[in-house]
Amino acid sequence: MQTLSQIQILFQQYLVDHQFQNKPQELYDPVNYILSIGGKRLRPALLLLSYQLFDEDIDKALPAAFAIEVFHNFTLLHDDIMDEAPLRRGKPTVHHKYDLNTGILSGDVMMIYAYDYLTKIQDSTKIPAILSVFNQVAIEVCEGQQYDMNFESKNDVKITEYLDMIRQKTAVLLAGGMKIGAILGNANEKQADQIYQFAENIGIAFQLQDDILDTFGDPEKFGKKVGGDIAQNKKTFLLLKAFELADEDLRKELFRFIDMKEDRELEKIDGVKGVYRLLNIKEIANKEKEKYQKKAFEYLHKLGVKSEKLKIIKKLAEELLDREI
Amino acid sequence: MQTLSQIQILFQQYLVDHQFQNKPQELYDPVNYILSIGGKRLRPALLLLSYQLFDEDIDKALPAAFAIEVFHNFTLLHDDIMDEAPLRRGKPTVHHKYDLNTGILSGDVMMIYAYDYLTKIQDSTKIPAILSVFNQVAIEVCEGQQYDMNFESKNDVKITEYLDMIRQKTAVLLAGGMKIGAILGNANEKQADQIYQFAENIGIAFQLQDDILDTFGDPEKFGKKVGGDIAQNKKTFLLLKAFELADEDLRKELFRFIDMKEDRELEKIDGVKGVYRLLNIKEIANKEKEKYQKKAFEYLHKLGVKSEKLKIIKKLAEELLDREI
Repeated sequence: MQTLSQIQILFQQYLVDHQFQNKPQELYDPVNYILSIGGKRLRPALLLLSYQLFDEDIDKALPAAFAIEVFHNFTLLHDDIMDEAPLRRGKPTVHHKYDLNTGILSGDVMMIYAYDYLTKIQDSTKIPAILSVFNQVAIEVCEGQQYDMNFESKNDVKITEYLDMIRQKTAVLLAGGMKIGAILGNANEKQADQIYQFAENIGIAFQLQDDILDTFGDPEKFGKKVGGDIAQNKKTFLLLKAFELADEDLRKELFRFIDMKEDRELEKIDGVKGVYRLLNIKEIANKEKEKYQKKAFEYLHKLGVKSEKLKIIKKLAEELLDREI
Repeated sequence: MQTLSQIQILFQQYLVDHQFQNKPQELYDPVNYILSIGGKRLRPALLLLSYQLFDEDIDKALPAAFAIEVFHNFTLLHDDIMDEAPLRRGKPTVHHKYDLNTGILSGDVMMIYAYDYLTKIQDSTKIPAILSVFNQVAIEVCEGQQYDMNFESKNDVKITEYLDMIRQKTAVLLAGGMKIGAILGNANEKQADQIYQFAENIGIAFQLQDDILDTFGDPEKFGKKVGGDIAQNKKTFLLLKAFELADEDLRKELFRFIDMKEDRELEKIDGVKGVYRLLNIKEIANKEKEKYQKKAFEYLHKLGVKSEKLKIIKKLAEELLDREI
C-alpha cells in the first residue's frame, strides 16, 4: 500500500506528464493554466485511496483520477464565470486572464477530456458502470450549481434544501470519484455504494465545516477572509439556522444587520456573529457536521475491509474535518 | 425500411417524449426551449439512416440520435454566447431570453445528457467504440470553433486551414453521428469508417455550398440575408480564394471594399461580388464543393450495401447539396 504522500506525488507526476500539447494553443493553454494553479488534488487522491482499498496496482486508476480532477477544474472554470470571480487560488481566473469565450470553450473541451480519460481503462467491461456513476454525478453538480444560484434571490430557502444543494454541488463528486475508484479496484456493488455514502457524508460535513470556518475561523489559519459569507449575505447553514431559531425580535435584529451596506461591513459581521452566539449557532452547526461525519465513518466500517487498510483514508478525512474552528 | 419522413416523424416523437422534466426548472427550461425551436434535425436523421443500412430495428438507435441532437444544440447554445448572437432560427437565443449564466450552465448539462443518452444502449459492449468516436468528434468540434474564432483576427488564413476548420466545426459531427449509427447497426469496422468518410465529405461540401449561397443565393430561397458574410468580412472559401488569385491591383481593390464601413454595406457587397465575378470564384467554389461531393459518394458506394438501400441517403444528400445557387 502506498502512503498518501506517495499517492499525491504519483498523481502530480501524471498531471505533469499529461499536459495538453494539442492545437490550437488558444484552446489548450487555459486548460493547462487552470490545472497548474494547484488546489489540494483532494478528489483524485480520494479516488486512488478508494482504489487501493481493493487493489494494489494503483497505476490503473490514474487516468480516472485525472478525469475527475479535469472535470472538477472544468466546474471551477465555468463557476468562476458565473460568479464573476476575478481570482482563483490567488491567481487570475481563466476568463479574466484570457476572455469570456476562452473560458466557455476551454471549459467545454475539459469536460469532454474528462470523459475521454474516464474511459481510458484497460478493462472496458467496466466502462458502462463507471459512466453511469459519472453521468449521474456530473448532472447533479450542474443542478447543485443552479440551486446555489437560485438561492441568491430566494428568501425562503429551507435547511433541507441547503443541505441538498451542498450535497449536489460538492459532495457527490467526491463520492462519485471514490465509487469509480472502488469499481476499478473490483469492489463489489455493495462496497462501491458504501464508499459512495462515506464520501458523500464526508463532503457534506466538509462543506458545513467550511461554513463554520468562514464565520468563526482563525483568520491566520483560514485561507479566505473570515466573515465573507456574512458580508455577502450568503444563505449558509448558519444563517438559515439562525432564522429558524430566532424569535421575532432577534429576527428583526438579524435583518437590520443583513441590510447594512458595504461601508459598514465590520459592524455587519460583528452584529450577525453576535446573533449567532446568542443562538448557539456554532455549536449547532458543529453537531450537524459531526452527525454527517459519524454517518460517514459508519459506512466506512461496513465495507468489510481490514481496518489496517482504512487507516490512510480515516486519517485524511479526520484532517479535513478537524481544521481549527 | 422506413422512409425519410417516417424517420423524421419517429425522431420528432422521441424528442417530444423525452422533454426534460427534471428539477430545477431554471436549468432545464432553457434546454427544452432550444430543443423545441426546431432546425432540420439533420444529424439524428443521418444517424438513423446510417443505422438502417445495416439493421431494421431503428428504435434501438433513437437514444443515440437524440444524444447527437442534444450535443449539436449544446454547441449552438454556447456558440451563440461566443458570437453574441441575439437570434437563432428567428427566436431569441438562450442567453438573450434567459441570461448568460443560464446559457453556460444549461449548455453544460446538455453535454452531459448527450453522453447519458449515447450510453443508453441495450448492447453495452458497443459503448467503448461509440464513446471513442464521440469523444474524438466532440473534441474536434471545440477545436473547430476555436479556429473559427482565431481566424477572425488572423490575416494569413490558408485555404487548407479554412477547409480543416469547417471539417472540424461542421463535418465531423455529421460523420461521427453516422458512424455511431453504423456501429449500432452492426456494420463492420471498415463500413463504419467509410460511412464516416462519406458524411465528413458531405459536410464539407455542405459548408462550401453555404458559403456560395451566402453570397450568390436567391434572397427569396436562402434563409439568411444574402451578402452577410461579405458585410462581416468573414474569411470564407470565396474570400480566401479571391485573395489567392487576385493580382496586386485587384487585391488592392478587394481591400478597398473590405475596409468600407457599415453605412456603405450595399456598395461593399456589390464591390466584393464584382471581384469574385472577375475571378470566377463562384465556379471555382462550386468545383471544390463537387470534388467533396464526388468523394463522398465514392465512399458510399464502397460500403457493399445494396444500392437499393442507399437510395434515401443519396436523395437526402443530393437535396442538401443542390439548393438553388
